Amino acid sequence: MSTTPSTPLLKDELDIVIPTIRNLDFLEQWRPFFEKYHLIIVQDGDPSKVIKVPEGFDYELYNRNDINRILGPKASCISFKDSACRCFGYMVSKKKYIFTIDDDCFVAKDPTGKEINALQQHIKNLLSPSTPHFFNTLYDPYREGADFVRGYPFSMREGVKTAVSHGLWLNIPDYDAPTQLVKPRERNTRYVDSVMTIPKGTLFPMCGMNLAFDREVIGPAMYFGLMGDGQPIGRYDDMWAGWCTKVICDHLNLGIKTGLPYIWHSKASNPFVNLKKEYNGIFWQEEIIPFFQTATLSKESTTVQACYIELAKQVKEKLSKIDPYFTKLADAMVTWIEAWDELNPTGENLAKLSISSKK
Amino acid sequence: MSTTPSTPLLKDELDIVIPTIRNLDFLEQWRPFFEKYHLIIVQDGDPSKVIKVPEGFDYELYNRNDINRILGPKASCISFKDSACRCFGYMVSKKKYIFTIDDDCFVAKDPTGKEINALQQHIKNLLSPSTPHFFNTLYDPYREGADFVRGYPFSMREGVKTAVSHGLWLNIPDYDAPTQLVKPRERNTRYVDSVMTIPKGTLFPMCGMNLAFDREVIGPAMYFGLMGDGQPIGRYDDMWAGWCTKVICDHLNLGIKTGLPYIWHSKASNPFVNLKKEYNGIFWQEEIIPFFQTATLSKESTTVQACYIELAKQVKEKLSKIDPYFTKLADAMVTWIEAWDELNPTGENLAKLSISSKK
Repeated sequence: MSTTPSTPLLKDELDIVIPTIRNLDFLEQWRPFFEKYHLIIVQDGDPSKVIKVPEGFDYELYNRNDINRILGPKASCISFKDSACRCFGYMVSKKKYIFTIDDDCFVAKDPTGKEINALQQHIKNLLSPSTPHFFNTLYDPYREGADFVRGYPFSMREGVKTAVSHGLWLNIPDYDAPTQLVKPRERNTRYVDSVMTIPKGTLFPMCGMNLAFDREVIGPAMYFGLMGDGQPIGRYDDMWAGWCTKVICDHLNLGIKTGLPYIWHSKASNPFVNLKKEYNGIFWQEEIIPFFQTATLSKESTTVQACYIELAKQVKEKLSKIDPYFTKLADAMVTWIEAWDELNPTGENLAKLSISSKK
Repeated sequence: MSTTPSTPLLKDELDIVIPTIRNLDFLEQWRPFFEKYHLIIVQDGDPSKVIKVPEGFDYELYNRNDINRILGPKASCISFKDSACRCFGYMVSKKKYIFTIDDDCFVAKDPTGKEINALQQHIKNLLSPSTPHFFNTLYDPYREGADFVRGYPFSMREGVKTAVSHGLWLNIPDYDAPTQLVKPRERNTRYVDSVMTIPKGTLFPMCGMNLAFDREVIGPAMYFGLMGDGQPIGRYDDMWAGWCTKVICDHLNLGIKTGLPYIWHSKASNPFVNLKKEYNGIFWQEEIIPFFQTATLSKESTTVQACYIELAKQVKEKLSKIDPYFTKLADAMVTWIEAWDELNPTGENLAKLSISSKK
């Protein structure tokens, strides 16, 4: 298929969301690629701490006090002391696209030694269609030098709108605590030059380290759940968002791509600390996955918000038996959507707001 | 996951099947990799023509007269004047594994310039499990230097038995006639260093050019249909086998891998001739694909043969309305299984044969 030769920058249409607890020195390496963009920094932990941002970057920064002030009681849906807080940034953004990256991720190099402009590749992924209904053996058919292979149905070659671009990591792979413990020295050195669509009906582990999405199209599904302070679970924030997002994308005929771009993940987190955060998730997951694999949404749910509310209801009904945590999570999912709609009034929501303010 | 450091050769357990109409000079390049294996050459077209095989190869050769002699009236299920005839080789083999390759495929080189031992990679793929139930973003988790990423359910990490290994092509990509016509100069130069499982419930276009499978496990599903001489369709032989095989693998909890190894595909076939062969398939396919996407097999079908017979019945019922060809094809599918069981008597089949011979 023909591809756009040059990728648009989208600099007025994209925000970069960074959750952090420390000075953002890592941005120095990203300067040539990020400086033109607006950053939304979500400061986690102690709000009195001052986070230094290298000069020349255009940013807004929110700490816990800001989150509480802006959302009021609804701030309860935003995690504290966990990078899950990043989803607050998705909510306050006014842009069409979001790119989110962890502050221990650096610029990777391709096999020729060239620095990879990760953001540019995400934009490429988001601006070209996805193919969730049939597998193409030469990977992304919309890439330059590639196409649909013999036997690919012609009626499916238009593809569907891409909602999410999931990037990967060189150096430290995104492993769970048990795998980290068993393979402390494993590094990812394999550069796989491919982008592909996750097929319809298939779940995947979505990592929040290097992720971009079309906020207008799928934003309200990108809730990173209740993790960290006061919660019985951590490190499942992006997974939760990924499972919900995948089920909703499948329902709404949207695509999710994975593969390029790579970033350089510099530092493995502490596997002992991770195990403590993960252990509940590790076995809860064995019931959560079948739930999401079989979850279906009704035809009436035609917006992301409606899908998400329907999913929250199913979570409460079917997962609360695992642990009371899921009742709390299901409620937080609803709160998240209410807060989203408050901060992002659409035509319909504006009407509702104006009615309620007249009361 | 831990991987076997050295790949077994399986030289007494694998046959290489080559359909051809010409002298097999291409084998010279493959000599270091193929010489230890037994070849089954299926000669297509004029049986009086003598096919030269380079010295030193261990082979058996079957021409049309042989096929007719061995199968009798059942030879009608084997295509003539089409490389679909290759599946006769699968049937007469007595080995556990099959590797099939086209005679215009040569040894490819990896990005470091090293010649790729395609067969060795296929064996690696077949001997390690597949993961059709959940997507692993770092591709094959069983490869050296890779593993399951965070969020991959632990209960699914054993994987399932791999039945098929689908290899790819550098240089001339496997395009349909319309794409060949539109992009006569496109070459595949992208070496994607990955092997992955095609997820459950997702169909793919299986190409017969560079393909290996576990004959004991999935052999009877690898029927390449009725193509070529006297048939209204060509170039859908491997696609047909792929669709049937995928549905049956999904039903029997078997895996199909695609990606490495690459071969060097030297010559594009004539797009005008191809269009003539393909045009029926191109639009029939639009009904065939939804048929296979929704096909389900009954719990009672626990063997590949039983699944295949059930699928043949469904083909007759649901696809015959497209064209009378599908009635003929469905009958040929049944004949194929009868012929397979005759040539490959298992314990159960042996019992049946002995009963019928006593009549």
